[in-house]
Amino acid sequence: MRAATIREQEVLVEEHPDPLPGAGEVLVRVRAAGLNGADMMQLRGLYPAPAGSPRDIPGLELAGEVAALGPGAERFSIGARVMAIVGGGGQAQLATVHERQLMPVPDALDWPAAGALPEVFITAHDALFAQAQLRSGERLLVHGGAGGVGTAAIQLARAAGASVTATVRSEALRDQVDALGARAIAPEGFAAHGPFDVILELVGAVNLADNMQALATGGRVAVIGVSAGAKGELNLLALMGKRARIHGSTLRARPLEEKALATRRLEHEALPLFEAGALRVPIAETYALDQAAAAYERFAAGGKLGKIVLTM
Amino acid sequence: MRAATIREQEVLVEEHPDPLPGAGEVLVRVRAAGLNGADMMQLRGLYPAPAGSPRDIPGLELAGEVAALGPGAERFSIGARVMAIVGGGGQAQLATVHERQLMPVPDALDWPAAGALPEVFITAHDALFAQAQLRSGERLLVHGGAGGVGTAAIQLARAAGASVTATVRSEALRDQVDALGARAIAPEGFAAHGPFDVILELVGAVNLADNMQALATGGRVAVIGVSAGAKGELNLLALMGKRARIHGSTLRARPLEEKALATRRLEHEALPLFEAGALRVPIAETYALDQAAAAYERFAAGGKLGKIVLTM
Repeated sequence: MRAATIREQEVLVEEHPDPLPGAGEVLVRVRAAGLNGADMMQLRGLYPAPAGSPRDIPGLELAGEVAALGPGAERFSIGARVMAIVGGGGQAQLATVHERQLMPVPDALDWPAAGALPEVFITAHDALFAQAQLRSGERLLVHGGAGGVGTAAIQLARAAGASVTATVRSEALRDQVDALGARAIAPEGFAAHGPFDVILELVGAVNLADNMQALATGGRVAVIGVSAGAKGELNLLALMGKRARIHGSTLRARPLEEKALATRRLEHEALPLFEAGALRVPIAETYALDQAAAAYERFAAGGKLGKIVLTM
Repeated sequence: MRAATIREQEVLVEEHPDPLPGAGEVLVRVRAAGLNGADMMQLRGLYPAPAGSPRDIPGLELAGEVAALGPGAERFSIGARVMAIVGGGGQAQLATVHERQLMPVPDALDWPAAGALPEVFITAHDALFAQAQLRSGERLLVHGGAGGVGTAAIQLARAAGASVTATVRSEALRDQVDALGARAIAPEGFAAHGPFDVILELVGAVNLADNMQALATGGRVAVIGVSAGAKGELNLLALMGKRARIHGSTLRARPLEEKALATRRLEHEALPLFEAGALRVPIAETYALDQAAAAYERFAAGGKLGKIVLTM
């Protein structure tokens, strides 16, 4: 099979041996695979693939057809449309995935949408609902609303009955974020738009102090991205006064069973909303696998709303 | 009635009008009332009493006998032994308390123990179980194990099947903390004794960085005291890598219904353990109400294990 391949901080497309599905695994003929921030970090040598994932093939998510079943795999039939998060190796013509990590692809979604859905929607859903326990009627602030996780979070929160404000650095993208159901604002002075019951932090420690100010009593901060810096001063007295909490998490480092659980939750609570047309996957651009290097360049350039997707 | 009274950062004992129980309230003839850190802060002008509590009578907890019932109060009979946390006003001969905030006093407890129980045991129980969700088999670190909340937390955690390590600044008190069921250690280099599933922070931000290092994956930090300083640097990437969370809370500022809920939980989950003799209330010294000033001086001097209690 051919696969995007990391060689000395460059993305090439190389031949690899076809993977074989082990016990409980499914071999997927990949049709689309989204790019994510962690792929860029892995490319730069900052984020090694977890144990058990291919070391040199990036790709944290994929969608495709079931091509073969390993021993004991029985959730899906050959030819079924499936999608999943994976520890790595998604940007290839073939990939093996444990069947408990797979979700069926809703009929309403084409391949690029399905291939760009799992990582950002599972990440956003887990952070908003499993961690921060966002509820209907609550007020959510998303820091970094134009990114992949940000656009997923805005839609999921709106569909669940929350009101959403989102900071968006690029003025040019704010109308598109508004169109997803949020009130897009500049990052500067965001605390004046509060209070917020939940804050989804995709930017970094630069917001830490103002987040404490902007939180409502009983508020929750879920930190899942720190691209603008990880270290900042926290005032514990402010945290106590708000009776607040701060969660940190990453999806990628979790063990199989936790990823499968987060996947089941998304399948149960969000896939019906895709079927109903209430949620969509914003796609900025698609590239054929052979153009993987160009796709990574486009991703690195930023300034887009929606995902960059490889198609196979 | 006579009551401890704050006058220009001094504690006097003065006459006040007897309080009258309102709807759903109980008039308690107070027999004992513990001193707590928040009383000291209020004395120094740093922690005003919440709305609805006496401005000038300190005391966040009390135990005594039901002396009269307000309209609609029906949970307790005249003469019943009761104890409670209150927003203030506990260090007096009489106090009114909403009946939903009262707990029955276990037969095994004398008045000083009952008067010194509610604040620290409700605080510790709420932080360990409602917030940090400590479970049997987990490893707890208590920062400040010789204090009132610390000694309560150690006992509650041990009774629930957790193993407990506790930092204790005073070397002279470590044997007494060991006797409560903890492994008492010096604060310096505590992270080397980890990992810990839950850390109860009663000291302050000075421990923030090492707490992140000492946490197990999925760990929780509950911050309920910052006497040694509130501001410190937090590494959000470390928080994410541990998939951890940090809670902050205070009991005193919560609305009546949340205090009542925390009280019900303690009543249900911990009072049977007092009845069974598995938990005890360490008492350092008792003072008659007229000696309130001396009691506050003793409290401020520190270096004790166990509570300072006024008796009436």
